Amino acid sequence: MRDVAIIGVGHTKFGRADKSSLELFSEAALQAMDDAGITGKDIEGLFMGAALPGFEEAQVMPAAFAAAELNLGPIPATRYEGACASASVAIRDAAMWVASGELDMVLAGGVEKALSMGTAFATRTFAMSCHSPTEGPVGLTFPGVFAMAARRYAVEYGIPLDELREKMAYVSIKNHKHGALNPLAQFYKKMGALKVEDVLNARLVADPLTLLDCCPFSDGAAAIVLCAAEDARRYSDDPVYILGTGQASGSALSKMEDLTKPVSRIQSARTAFKHARLEPKDIDILEIHDCFTIAELIALECMGFFEWGEAANATAEGETDMGGKIPTNMSGGLIGKGHPIGATGASQVYWIIKQMRGEAAKGNQIDPVPEYGMTDTLGGDFGTLCHLILGRDRVRR
Amino acid sequence: MRDVAIIGVGHTKFGRADKSSLELFSEAALQAMDDAGITGKDIEGLFMGAALPGFEEAQVMPAAFAAAELNLGPIPATRYEGACASASVAIRDAAMWVASGELDMVLAGGVEKALSMGTAFATRTFAMSCHSPTEGPVGLTFPGVFAMAARRYAVEYGIPLDELREKMAYVSIKNHKHGALNPLAQFYKKMGALKVEDVLNARLVADPLTLLDCCPFSDGAAAIVLCAAEDARRYSDDPVYILGTGQASGSALSKMEDLTKPVSRIQSARTAFKHARLEPKDIDILEIHDCFTIAELIALECMGFFEWGEAANATAEGETDMGGKIPTNMSGGLIGKGHPIGATGASQVYWIIKQMRGEAAKGNQIDPVPEYGMTDTLGGDFGTLCHLILGRDRVRR
Repeated sequence: MRDVAIIGVGHTKFGRADKSSLELFSEAALQAMDDAGITGKDIEGLFMGAALPGFEEAQVMPAAFAAAELNLGPIPATRYEGACASASVAIRDAAMWVASGELDMVLAGGVEKALSMGTAFATRTFAMSCHSPTEGPVGLTFPGVFAMAARRYAVEYGIPLDELREKMAYVSIKNHKHGALNPLAQFYKKMGALKVEDVLNARLVADPLTLLDCCPFSDGAAAIVLCAAEDARRYSDDPVYILGTGQASGSALSKMEDLTKPVSRIQSARTAFKHARLEPKDIDILEIHDCFTIAELIALECMGFFEWGEAANATAEGETDMGGKIPTNMSGGLIGKGHPIGATGASQVYWIIKQMRGEAAKGNQIDPVPEYGMTDTLGGDFGTLCHLILGRDRVRR
Repeated sequence: MRDVAIIGVGHTKFGRADKSSLELFSEAALQAMDDAGITGKDIEGLFMGAALPGFEEAQVMPAAFAAAELNLGPIPATRYEGACASASVAIRDAAMWVASGELDMVLAGGVEKALSMGTAFATRTFAMSCHSPTEGPVGLTFPGVFAMAARRYAVEYGIPLDELREKMAYVSIKNHKHGALNPLAQFYKKMGALKVEDVLNARLVADPLTLLDCCPFSDGAAAIVLCAAEDARRYSDDPVYILGTGQASGSALSKMEDLTKPVSRIQSARTAFKHARLEPKDIDILEIHDCFTIAELIALECMGFFEWGEAANATAEGETDMGGKIPTNMSGGLIGKGHPIGATGASQVYWIIKQMRGEAAKGNQIDPVPEYGMTDTLGGDFGTLCHLILGRDRVRR
């Protein structure tokens, strides 16, 4: 198996887009190809994440038409659907096709028109990535799932709920702060200076989560170009290598032992670390699936960056902000940057790479530039988890 | 890269099912695991095709829940959506993961509840795998696409339309005849003795196609177990090997040069032949995507089994029936066996393998058992094409 490099990246402005999903994806893809200094003729396969294009634009099978829109010729083009983890699953598969030697250069990424479809319809349709037979009839949507997770977290670790709410608020403050600095973020120049009380007093969505504990729906796309590591320097002065990947699946909530320790997230992260021959202490920067503030805390613990029950305190103490133990979501994360469902995993990879190139926005860029970074992407209520570990050096430590 | 074998297969009865898609897929998957003599503990990954589960059962991300339903543990489970080619794309990817050495044993297949959702709703939702921006507004659905293809075929090859209609009828007669003999087919014991006039005089769906030129919508599932070829004899006395795969993409109809020679179908078949180091003359049996009678003719020509414009005559002369040059759709095909969209590619593989084991139904089984077989699966209006070449011997000729 060959090592795999990322040699080009592209990312649209997140927010409300007056473009179709094919246009949005093309914008990100063309940027990525320009960034790599290649043209469509060089691309041998397209790996595309999209969660609900049928509901958004009555467009099933978008990958084939994206390849056509980009004039890539009759190459294989596949759509991956793993709810919010769709793009990460697509990238993981793209990396495998390059690693195997079957394809030499491919395009991967994702797109969603989640804001344009309207928040109420988006909430209801995206809830279909819950376990429909048991969770549909009770009317469960994601804010409810993560409200339960927050309550369980409080009970599990003996933290009074009001105290936990304050600590979760620091996730929101940090991610909104960095989103406000990120020109491609949905909340660029907005909500950059929240206080704990602002989060606590925002409109209640699902007790104990307020609106500012939740990420928004967004329109957007992100894409990357992958090739064999041995060819990477022909195209890029600063290639980034995919050192490890992991993917795992969950079950219906009713079958989960503990909402605060989802097995799928633990297993997927472990697989990625094992594959990369790295440990949490080696990682310099994270992009984590903070669909809700509590989700970021659970992710940090499942991935092994903090002991069980300690991520809440650590976040309140700044350990996940710039200069802390493990800077997390310096792009703004889903909460500050936006969450175009099928694009989110590719956006996370984009921002890790921008950090590794020293190209993140002022106030978001960590110093020194990170050597190793990791993404965490969550589909549904822990149904699909995917982790990717990236490094500036293809040789593992 | 390792060679890959299929060591177990499963297939539900096609037709109307009083089961959920998770139950249907589990039925096929458990059969496949039993057939391979393995249990869920042996499975390291799930590769699942499904086209419209969100519209059928409000269930997005079904692969994760299928893994949970089958008690496979937190293994990676991915849903592939390429319209009617979803399962073939999933199987092709599964084969890559095994070939690469990353996974040793995996489950692949697909499921759909296309009949239960009602024909009118199914027709409209499945039309979303056409190019929605240009083909949606004109109200195009699949019968219309293939009616145009039939008319173009008549013009292109100078065949009077009435004469072409008679020749297409032989596809319907052949496939209904074999479907009537196949106990798992939707039309088992039904319509086994059609005459040309029956097809011509059936209800007109889209001129020149009548109801008997069209495949039905179906509920159903099919699944296979794949492992490394070197391990296959530990599990199966008659493993079948995946010798070559191909996949290609098309464009909006308005950008296609010729509806009777879709580039995606030609390219995908060529890739599979090249990969397998085989030619059409080496293939003993075909399962082809006969969503409409004309589609079977176009496929036979694109894949290289007949010269352009000659498949219609050849079919009328019995060249694609048992004892002919290339027996095609001895299972009944989509027309006689049924078409549960996301399951169809896996069903095609199932029936090639049953033929290779000598286990097809009486009247459907070819003699001697085939050495080499091939599947052709079409997603949308030539948007996604996938071909798989299977052999009883892992050594290519």
